Amino acid sequence: MTIPSQPQPLTIPPRLLMGPGPSNANPRILSAMSLPAIGHLDPFYLEMMDQIQDLLRYVWQTENELTISISGTGSAGMEASLANVVEPGDVVLIGVMGYFGHRLVDMATRYGADVKTINKPWGENFSLAELKEAIETHKPAILGLVNAETSTGVRQPLEGVGELCREHNCLLLVDAVTSLGGVPFYTDKWGVDLAYSCSQKGLGCPPGLSPFTMSDRAIEKLQKRTTSVSNWYLDMNLLSQYWGEPRKYHHTAPCNMNYGLREALALIVEEGLENCWQRHQQNAELLWEGLEKLGLVCHVEKQYRLPTLTTVRIPEGVNGKAVSIYLLKEYNIEIGGGLGELAGKVWRIGLMGYNSRPENVLLLLEALRKVL
Amino acid sequence: MTIPSQPQPLTIPPRLLMGPGPSNANPRILSAMSLPAIGHLDPFYLEMMDQIQDLLRYVWQTENELTISISGTGSAGMEASLANVVEPGDVVLIGVMGYFGHRLVDMATRYGADVKTINKPWGENFSLAELKEAIETHKPAILGLVNAETSTGVRQPLEGVGELCREHNCLLLVDAVTSLGGVPFYTDKWGVDLAYSCSQKGLGCPPGLSPFTMSDRAIEKLQKRTTSVSNWYLDMNLLSQYWGEPRKYHHTAPCNMNYGLREALALIVEEGLENCWQRHQQNAELLWEGLEKLGLVCHVEKQYRLPTLTTVRIPEGVNGKAVSIYLLKEYNIEIGGGLGELAGKVWRIGLMGYNSRPENVLLLLEALRKVL
Repeated sequence: MTIPSQPQPLTIPPRLLMGPGPSNANPRILSAMSLPAIGHLDPFYLEMMDQIQDLLRYVWQTENELTISISGTGSAGMEASLANVVEPGDVVLIGVMGYFGHRLVDMATRYGADVKTINKPWGENFSLAELKEAIETHKPAILGLVNAETSTGVRQPLEGVGELCREHNCLLLVDAVTSLGGVPFYTDKWGVDLAYSCSQKGLGCPPGLSPFTMSDRAIEKLQKRTTSVSNWYLDMNLLSQYWGEPRKYHHTAPCNMNYGLREALALIVEEGLENCWQRHQQNAELLWEGLEKLGLVCHVEKQYRLPTLTTVRIPEGVNGKAVSIYLLKEYNIEIGGGLGELAGKVWRIGLMGYNSRPENVLLLLEALRKVL
Repeated sequence: MTIPSQPQPLTIPPRLLMGPGPSNANPRILSAMSLPAIGHLDPFYLEMMDQIQDLLRYVWQTENELTISISGTGSAGMEASLANVVEPGDVVLIGVMGYFGHRLVDMATRYGADVKTINKPWGENFSLAELKEAIETHKPAILGLVNAETSTGVRQPLEGVGELCREHNCLLLVDAVTSLGGVPFYTDKWGVDLAYSCSQKGLGCPPGLSPFTMSDRAIEKLQKRTTSVSNWYLDMNLLSQYWGEPRKYHHTAPCNMNYGLREALALIVEEGLENCWQRHQQNAELLWEGLEKLGLVCHVEKQYRLPTLTTVRIPEGVNGKAVSIYLLKEYNIEIGGGLGELAGKVWRIGLMGYNSRPENVLLLLEALRKVL
């Protein structure tokens, strides 16, 4: 084996991350992440886990006992939500209105679900009546919806959906990857049974963890399984015994990532969750006004736009990719391109967590003005 | 929802981590981890991924193209190794000589394998002749062995096992969680087809990532599957397209953890891999001599002892748990207790990565002398 040449010291370009995530973290979070590691069964660490659970219950607006951070990214949280409750043959109904709806379909299929879908063009969402009709038609065991579709910038309202699911004895599973911390989300009030998010968007922490919550109804389905959960790493039968009593060893916790998450959540308590949501909304509106003044058009109808992520139509004749590259190279600003159906058609601009600040809006608008 | 009380600033007790992992990280690693986040598709980050792959190939001693860090802990690496190559009905032969062998059995069973086991008392390992006989009896598609059994402190020699597996058209899957970086490991020379480790032991980085490598023979089995990999997050069909061309988005990479891993690997290049192995061996021998002088007995025969992890028999009449708690409370030193068959019978003392230093050996021996 050849010995690799000695790597240069790591220096990270000073990017302003205004794409679909990650976002820049508050320096307090980065500082917490550089504290020394600690044992995953150390009494001090176990106490910190309890604290993280309490803080997560606050941002999820839930009393769910099983509210934890999963030791993987948001995609691992999506997988955990399905792996635990889907048994082979279960009818799982997915509302597909973008890339992450398709991912739910892919994952649920892998776990042996009988997947049914309802579909919307990328940029729209489902009405309660449409969801009702689909539930009555397919009689699913689980309804999967994306509350904040990161590929389109659309918010899927959830008011009334939980009641509908309860009437039809169905679990409500929700992707909150681009909503938690940045967009009002009420797990208990809305009757959400399984929800997952990520650390690097509304919570403003670096990527690596997935906040996850699961209701007693969902736990009941897990406990009634006749087959084992095929995914050991994400099996909530095991994880709940590590996060709660008897504190049984499962895997070695990523302690430094959890230090960061704790600090991110502490910052939200400090600000107040409602204030945090409001800040995201206000800065997004500032962005939308500015985009309009530049003659740019948002892809999503205003009332369903996510404050955390805005999709902007690339004007005719403009090379969208070239604009993104220019912003990155010239100004160290990252914005995202379109995915799937929207590839080449939109830019995706994120205003998340610590990055949701008026000065960032100002800078991006001015940079866009220069380049267009 | 009640608002949680504002958390106190996070302060971590100054533990010296001499248990089965995590170990303390070199401050350079912690410092790298606190650099600002960066986009997972940023040209700079993609370049860093290439670099991490090169560095990982060096510590794994392999030319395997598919050599990556998985975005989860060592247990996720274990799961990835099975999830990708086990198809329902495959005969998987596991050598069980401790806790992590049992975990391999559990996981392989969940993926539908027809699991066969050979077993040894906790503290022993398998001879090449025993492995040969078992392979001839069971004709497995995959042989799973634990190179460094973290629950017993035993090293399982692998010389000749790869040839045996090739003769019998079987893949060799190896747990190197407590060996990589601290114990000689030769992926290619030994004919290992799948191997996984963790970031927080021999590599001396905080926990959160799993170095993983997979040979072309193993990839061939993956490509010939007639069923899809049920685990989306760990599906190497997808991950290989993100770590290599066409750099297709899979999940948002935990960039800060990878900064830390890069720095940990850079430190090993700086020291030299063989020197790093040798340092682990020398400090372990210092520990073993000191333990003997204290009248303590190592559980494992010297030639099969892991330099990274030593199991020490708790003397008759001594309350092992009380000793560990005393060390933690009085001196901030963490050592581990026994797992499974060895619960209450041994302590587990780790000398891993940055913590494998003579001063730590000296301190622990003196602390043990005081308490016993």
